[in-house]
Amino acid sequence: MAGSVTEMENKQVVLTEYVTGFPKESHLAVRNGGKIQLKAPQGSVLVKNLYLSCDPYMRGRMSPPKAGGDPNFASFTPGSPIQGFGVGKVVDSGVAEFKSGDFVWGVTSWEEYSIISNTKTLFKITNTEDVPLSYYTGLLGMPGVTAYFGFHDVCAPKKGEYVFVSAASGAVGQLVGQFAKLAGCYVLKSKFGFDEAFNYKEENDLDAALKRYFPEGIDIYFENVGGKMLDAVLSNIRVHGRIAVCGMISQYNLEHHEGVHNLAAMIYKRVRMQGFVSFDYFARYSELLDDVVPYVKEGKIAYVEDVAEGLENGPAALVGLFSGRNVGKQVVAVAHE
Amino acid sequence: MAGSVTEMENKQVVLTEYVTGFPKESHLAVRNGGKIQLKAPQGSVLVKNLYLSCDPYMRGRMSPPKAGGDPNFASFTPGSPIQGFGVGKVVDSGVAEFKSGDFVWGVTSWEEYSIISNTKTLFKITNTEDVPLSYYTGLLGMPGVTAYFGFHDVCAPKKGEYVFVSAASGAVGQLVGQFAKLAGCYVLKSKFGFDEAFNYKEENDLDAALKRYFPEGIDIYFENVGGKMLDAVLSNIRVHGRIAVCGMISQYNLEHHEGVHNLAAMIYKRVRMQGFVSFDYFARYSELLDDVVPYVKEGKIAYVEDVAEGLENGPAALVGLFSGRNVGKQVVAVAHE
Repeated sequence: MAGSVTEMENKQVVLTEYVTGFPKESHLAVRNGGKIQLKAPQGSVLVKNLYLSCDPYMRGRMSPPKAGGDPNFASFTPGSPIQGFGVGKVVDSGVAEFKSGDFVWGVTSWEEYSIISNTKTLFKITNTEDVPLSYYTGLLGMPGVTAYFGFHDVCAPKKGEYVFVSAASGAVGQLVGQFAKLAGCYVLKSKFGFDEAFNYKEENDLDAALKRYFPEGIDIYFENVGGKMLDAVLSNIRVHGRIAVCGMISQYNLEHHEGVHNLAAMIYKRVRMQGFVSFDYFARYSELLDDVVPYVKEGKIAYVEDVAEGLENGPAALVGLFSGRNVGKQVVAVAHE
Repeated sequence: MAGSVTEMENKQVVLTEYVTGFPKESHLAVRNGGKIQLKAPQGSVLVKNLYLSCDPYMRGRMSPPKAGGDPNFASFTPGSPIQGFGVGKVVDSGVAEFKSGDFVWGVTSWEEYSIISNTKTLFKITNTEDVPLSYYTGLLGMPGVTAYFGFHDVCAPKKGEYVFVSAASGAVGQLVGQFAKLAGCYVLKSKFGFDEAFNYKEENDLDAALKRYFPEGIDIYFENVGGKMLDAVLSNIRVHGRIAVCGMISQYNLEHHEGVHNLAAMIYKRVRMQGFVSFDYFARYSELLDDVVPYVKEGKIAYVEDVAEGLENGPAALVGLFSGRNVGKQVVAVAHE
């Protein structure tokens, strides 16, 4: 009937209170958010969320607000749904770039249906045949952008260089290792096909472990961990080494971050250490697609997901990141279409 | 008489033993090194040393040898004269590029006369009129190269940016501040004409001090100090900030370097932190002369030296660097011509 608007129940995951220290499942609650009209206001898009991405940076958004922060990483609001990257299907569109039925990825909320008003970070998915939709939360989404541009742009790799990737079982880490192999570098091996690997939580002497795995030293370190791991790398870095600082997951839950003691090595070794965020590279997203999708089709990239089924399993999946429970990219499947 | 060779007594400053912790005058001894023939072997240059440079990096060369170090920064040998940059006059030359009577600067030994066999780091001084010879241990020598290329190349400054220089009373620090002013940046003031200055050893709350001096935050930090100072800067760094890591004088005498806790700020702030050494820029030395000598002639660069007279006062001058005794570039005058 013309003019009629469907209404749906809208389950949500909300932050119950700001987090200090390790996040617990009780910091998040699954609730019925009431009914939502499946109608996009002008300038916005209404999506049905399919896959939600669990990413380590979200820990920072669970902390109390700080002055002067980047709006992309603003604190969540207790009592409101948390936000993150996800894949969805457009139900109704109030902007010209998207139409009903489009698949999209970008920043959305943890709920069944979302109104997305900031469509600057929303991308239309044009290739739904060669890769599963969920990959747009990882390999072809924000973590892919992070890994691809972080490695190629920030690390500036050369063939034959020694590359160490920490947190190599996460979404970004597994990709950086593979991009490095494809670039002709020597990298850590693991189940994802790297040359060597070790679990940083089990190694008492990280420095000795790195000396064992990299007797020639490390040219490139893709930093996801921080703290003692960074110190061990600085003890083993080569002249003109590069460190791309992507994340420091070992530090996010500590009230006082561990001290890093070996920074003086940067001087004589002429080390470049560079922080970066994926948002700065979104304008170049098509380069990633052009380069990586062919590799996926040829089976040259292995991509492992850890999928939690149902929004009600979202809190455990997200919190599990920080104990390293996930093997591969952690995703929450809200619906499959 | 043809064929006769003059012999001279040769006073020297030698390392008595390797240093751990703060260096003391007793780690250095002035001795008579015996007679030296004033004749350069083929491939070497014999110089009369005039001015010797006291530089913080020399502390590292007083420590016991470490495996895999840069040969430019190899440990001194106990019982032998220490080495460093200096200005001298060629007495006899066994290479074509230098002749008797030339003034030169480069790596020499702490003694009255030196045979310099590595002439790769020896530069002929062609302009002895516009600047005092001693300036080639500082403004127009290694510290000048460090400050000039460290600031212009590593920091990549833009007009109007906020620049913080630590250890601004040292040879490098005083120059970086002035190069930054000439580049149209806002910098810390001190007796050398910077906008603001504070003494890092007297400030209990470095973070608060920096917030007071840089309410807008810091775009460029020229790091000479390390430790707590670096942490305070990381708390006040702006998006896309740059940190040139030139030295960490607060750490050189500590057995265990202080921990730096705020590195995670590098991520969201997209900070680039870059270690460098002057040796990598010596090939571009003429750029420094072309740019800086006119400023000196126009009185647009103030350059302060702290000159200790006589080789016997060398140990106290060098050791004094690490208690911050010097005001301006610390030089030892061995002879004035």
